[in-house]
Amino acid sequence: MKKYLAEMIGTMVLVLMGCGSAIFNGGCGTPAQVLMVAMAFGLSVVAMAYTIGGTSGCHINPAITLGCMLSGRMKSKEGLMYMLFQVIGALIGSTILWILTSNIDMEYATTTGANSCAPGVGIAGGLIAEIVFTFVFVLVVLGTTDAKKGAGNFAGLAIGLSLVLVHIVCIPLTGTSVNPARSIGPALFAGGEALSQLWLFIVAPLIGAALSAGVWKMVAEKE
Amino acid sequence: MKKYLAEMIGTMVLVLMGCGSAIFNGGCGTPAQVLMVAMAFGLSVVAMAYTIGGTSGCHINPAITLGCMLSGRMKSKEGLMYMLFQVIGALIGSTILWILTSNIDMEYATTTGANSCAPGVGIAGGLIAEIVFTFVFVLVVLGTTDAKKGAGNFAGLAIGLSLVLVHIVCIPLTGTSVNPARSIGPALFAGGEALSQLWLFIVAPLIGAALSAGVWKMVAEKE
Amino acid sequence: MKKYLAEMIGTMVLVLMGCGSAIFNGGCGTPAQVLMVAMAFGLSVVAMAYTIGGTSGCHINPAITLGCMLSGRMKSKEGLMYMLFQVIGALIGSTILWILTSNIDMEYATTTGANSCAPGVGIAGGLIAEIVFTFVFVLVVLGTTDAKKGAGNFAGLAIGLSLVLVHIVCIPLTGTSVNPARSIGPALFAGGEALSQLWLFIVAPLIGAALSAGVWKMVAEKE
Amino acid sequence: MKKYLAEMIGTMVLVLMGCGSAIFNGGCGTPAQVLMVAMAFGLSVVAMAYTIGGTSGCHINPAITLGCMLSGRMKSKEGLMYMLFQVIGALIGSTILWILTSNIDMEYATTTGANSCAPGVGIAGGLIAEIVFTFVFVLVVLGTTDAKKGAGNFAGLAIGLSLVLVHIVCIPLTGTSVNPARSIGPALFAGGEALSQLWLFIVAPLIGAALSAGVWKMVAEKE
Repeated sequence: MKKYLAEMIGTMVLVLMGCGSAIFNGGCGTPAQVLMVAMAFGLSVVAMAYTIGGTSGCHINPAITLGCMLSGRMKSKEGLMYMLFQVIGALIGSTILWILTSNIDMEYATTTGANSCAPGVGIAGGLIAEIVFTFVFVLVVLGTTDAKKGAGNFAGLAIGLSLVLVHIVCIPLTGTSVNPARSIGPALFAGGEALSQLWLFIVAPLIGAALSAGVWKMVAEKE
Repeated sequence: MKKYLAEMIGTMVLVLMGCGSAIFNGGCGTPAQVLMVAMAFGLSVVAMAYTIGGTSGCHINPAITLGCMLSGRMKSKEGLMYMLFQVIGALIGSTILWILTSNIDMEYATTTGANSCAPGVGIAGGLIAEIVFTFVFVLVVLGTTDAKKGAGNFAGLAIGLSLVLVHIVCIPLTGTSVNPARSIGPALFAGGEALSQLWLFIVAPLIGAALSAGVWKMVAEKE
Repeated sequence: MKKYLAEMIGTMVLVLMGCGSAIFNGGCGTPAQVLMVAMAFGLSVVAMAYTIGGTSGCHINPAITLGCMLSGRMKSKEGLMYMLFQVIGALIGSTILWILTSNIDMEYATTTGANSCAPGVGIAGGLIAEIVFTFVFVLVVLGTTDAKKGAGNFAGLAIGLSLVLVHIVCIPLTGTSVNPARSIGPALFAGGEALSQLWLFIVAPLIGAALSAGVWKMVAEKE
Repeated sequence: MKKYLAEMIGTMVLVLMGCGSAIFNGGCGTPAQVLMVAMAFGLSVVAMAYTIGGTSGCHINPAITLGCMLSGRMKSKEGLMYMLFQVIGALIGSTILWILTSNIDMEYATTTGANSCAPGVGIAGGLIAEIVFTFVFVLVVLGTTDAKKGAGNFAGLAIGLSLVLVHIVCIPLTGTSVNPARSIGPALFAGGEALSQLWLFIVAPLIGAALSAGVWKMVAEKE
């Protein structure tokens, strides 16, 4: 049970800090804002990896949990419980942001940090982007936490910095999900396009993670 | 006695460098400034964690010391001495900044880096923000320095990067305290609103830290 | 064979994420963009170093492979295979970017992140810059991965941050190659000047790497 | 002899990359430029610490060498040789930058990255700033490399990030020296005010380092 609680807290922190960085700093319209928000999401993972990593492994992302399940590192039932508590954590994170913005009279206090495809990107572009960048991200997770060839204690840092990387590239396209839980929380508060496109930010990251599991199996298995 | 001296020096460096980064770079009005000041506070913690961590544990923050006391890692008397020397260190840091700015004829040489609630944020918004973000920060401290499930030598890096994270999100709201000592030093030099709101930046971080101690106990205790 | 596959994937990620960061964020015309793209290239190396380092050593750069060959750490035949798969990986990375930009209707969707000498820099300036900065970069690689005097598990982080450093300095001059594979992929899609100057971004990095191997031999050999 | 060669190369890289980042990116007039140049200096130290740290300890700064001499970690004769080769390295770094800028027709190609007190800062302000910030920087060096209470392999990262920190705060005041060698190289190419104020950037860092050695002795000695 402790590990589910840890996943809930970790995903709460990810949504609270990542989405909060965008909300309180006026969005992601300029390169400096993109870099700042990218760092907020990535450093949330660094922070949580070294805080709850010893308890739950710090997935805080259903796509990572799926990658671990498909790689045979985790049983299906436990994985589904992880996902459930990740979504609950994301909802709590969005709720705290809603409470905060409700008590503040700022220009940006009505946004939620939800994902949606940028104008000109469209559903096809968003789908490809989320599949490709989740593939990269989950590949780093599977590789750095590999029992034999992995990065040991450096994994948390490498994974967090990889999430900075993924956000730098993908924020202009979709805001960057690569994490269904991170998208579900804010979308329920945002409604509108964020909610109608929510399926994309659930499906695409899971496809990307499945691809990672397949590719990593090719790299890691004995010849 | 060495450890109290270390806490004094560490908190001095935190205030000197963190607040100094805002003063000499013209405040925190743009995203690039927010990121820069956030890095200054966080890297001060990274620097001090690996410099005085072996001597005092590098709390340099009464909220962290309270979290350690409530988690049973430290006796009350020693904790209160830590807090005393942290506040003295912060005052020395602000004094050095005052000496520096007194010898400089720059546009921003009269500010202090003190905390106050931004226009539109108000007391309620500031209270919630400081409680929530201190909770996140001290949770990272308690988790990464946990004797059994912690991050070992990576703790200093993870904690410092978490302070970068907290500043990215919270600078637009209150300038970010999450540390009563860091607020006391500059407020005494700034006076005015910074002084009249000082209670908030003492009370809220301590509440946030107490919440962290309670939540971490739930995560870490044996089932 | 696994190690060649790993080099292919790693170089694919480097080109996809590094060049992608420039394409989707509107190029490198401002300091914030330079910093962001520099971080994208460097963090790609951090990510891959800890993901595939245990499999192939994570060269993902023919200049590094040449440095290792000249330092006697690797046989020529294996080195040439590394280079071949690095170039294939770069081509795949550029192809994925081409697919992405083809499905997106954005202002910058026609650029490729290819290298070319900036106006005013010219061939001579570009040659000197790429030789000098590849020398610095490959020296870090050879030093930090030295079996006796190296950095152990910190090598991946130090090398990745060095690539951030090299990009900060060199982006205004050539966009920064220091890696023939990284230049070949985008140049084939960009054509024009990027293609006609491609020889420079193959020759100069290899010269820089050969200089590094010579200098490191002087530093590292027994007296 | 190898260690002197290593110090020469390391200081060359520091000046080449740190000053180069300012020259080619148009100086340090905006927050994004300050952050970028701060990262260039700091990441140069991270890169060199893990490259030549095993050979010479990677001082690449006469102030650090003085701090080590005063702390009894190094003999005077060896320390003076370190300083000599650091200055030679800085001169080589500035020479490479001069060659580069001579072959380039860019707007900023005539600057050198030399230190001087900003308008309004004056000699008194510059002296205080360089003493204070060198004190902080060398304290981190002495603390993190302390044989008993130090940071082990994390020292290089902590020291490099501390140099990022020091630059963020001090660039608006003096451009940040905290390193006499780093100031001597560019000043000889810049002439004018940089040369007439050069004494300040030699004297102040050495005073700051001496203060660090004294304070660290108080923190580290047995009670």
